[in-house]
Amino acid sequence: MPAEDQRDRLEVVLVSPRNPLNIGAVARAMANFGFSRLAVVAAYAPHWREARSAVGAPELLRSAEETDSLAEAIRDCTLVAGTGTLTHRRPEQAVVRLPDLAPLVARELGHGGRVALVFGPEKHGLSREDLSHCNLLVEIPTDARQPSMNLGQAVAVCLYELACHAFSQQDSSLQPEATSHDGNGPTAASARLDLLAGVVEETMIAANYSPVRMREANRHDLRLLLRRLRPSERDTRRILGIFRRILWRLRR
Amino acid sequence: MPAEDQRDRLEVVLVSPRNPLNIGAVARAMANFGFSRLAVVAAYAPHWREARSAVGAPELLRSAEETDSLAEAIRDCTLVAGTGTLTHRRPEQAVVRLPDLAPLVARELGHGGRVALVFGPEKHGLSREDLSHCNLLVEIPTDARQPSMNLGQAVAVCLYELACHAFSQQDSSLQPEATSHDGNGPTAASARLDLLAGVVEETMIAANYSPVRMREANRHDLRLLLRRLRPSERDTRRILGIFRRILWRLRR
Repeated sequence: MPAEDQRDRLEVVLVSPRNPLNIGAVARAMANFGFSRLAVVAAYAPHWREARSAVGAPELLRSAEETDSLAEAIRDCTLVAGTGTLTHRRPEQAVVRLPDLAPLVARELGHGGRVALVFGPEKHGLSREDLSHCNLLVEIPTDARQPSMNLGQAVAVCLYELACHAFSQQDSSLQPEATSHDGNGPTAASARLDLLAGVVEETMIAANYSPVRMREANRHDLRLLLRRLRPSERDTRRILGIFRRILWRLRR
Repeated sequence: MPAEDQRDRLEVVLVSPRNPLNIGAVARAMANFGFSRLAVVAAYAPHWREARSAVGAPELLRSAEETDSLAEAIRDCTLVAGTGTLTHRRPEQAVVRLPDLAPLVARELGHGGRVALVFGPEKHGLSREDLSHCNLLVEIPTDARQPSMNLGQAVAVCLYELACHAFSQQDSSLQPEATSHDGNGPTAASARLDLLAGVVEETMIAANYSPVRMREANRHDLRLLLRRLRPSERDTRRILGIFRRILWRLRR
């Protein structure tokens, strides 16, 4: 699979970006490193319009996807990496330092998967809710005294790292690697995990497992659990079948 | 030598930056990756003032050095790396891809040297004249269709690479490495090479080697030659002694 093709399977996702200059800087960094798929979640309409219509705005900005939710933006992705610094919170998923991300991305693309790199709003970064959609959290190793990066610079640094180390050797993607899914087909896309989570939640409710006041927390934990497990599409279908059967029984 | 100390021996040099926002972005990236020494050459005064006095401007911006010439800004540096893309010109010195720069920087710092990373003006990049002060040209591997990076993003990418790979292993700087200067002391600083070049030029003129119409070109070539040779301070003194002697003879 040629490297060009693989870059089209990496998506940059901006959650609620505010500053039009930052959006423009993200687009420029993407063009610098040869990436073209951008999605913007819950954009602030006036600023998004301004960024898109800026003089010299690259084509990728005009063809960017707009969605209301992060789940929708990453629905096709099999590896979702959130970005951020770790100063303010204890992460609920695996943390990978940026220099260690490239082999994971290369392997995922080599298996025919799709990768999303998710960046939060300038002020606060990704929320706990946003992060629960991610398989892992990427940490850019910054100085503890000034950990928080500018959005455009953070995107540039991440794409530089991936362009150099996840795509540079075209044939690295062709080397078979031992993973837990070997012989079991590609990883399930994010939207499939959401579908499965929905059926599991219905089942938990039908089984009186989930009291109303705990539903939000249980939903959050379930989403994270599935991102940790990363079932293959084939296994996802199997598990869906099992839960649908249970649900049908519970509702009889 | 602790890593903290080494970061103080790496200097970021901006030649004629124009946009105050870019200057601020450079300062922020430096703070993100733990660097504090900034020099600004031939700054456009109003924009430089604006960048320095911006709300939240980091201390390193207020303590930045201002010089009229690049030669002055890098006078103490033993390894000077210019940055740029290679689309418009054929470089006159060694080109190093950014991912390959870290070992060179680590080695230089390990020998007690000082390193400058030089960035040109936003529109045109470093001039041929600027580049003749550099030992090597660092190329950020960008896409051929959009090679030119935003200044703040280029600085962020370079400092990320060095922070991860030239400083992360504190003891790597302590490992002796075979170089052409082994046993011959540290490399001469840039100002010493300029002094030597001046004496050599005088000698060439005194020897009628350099016709007036060729002087600029010869000066340029000589500066480049010394940057390629990278003599140690001890050898620089030796060569100076020889040329002074020749010059004294020629003028008798």
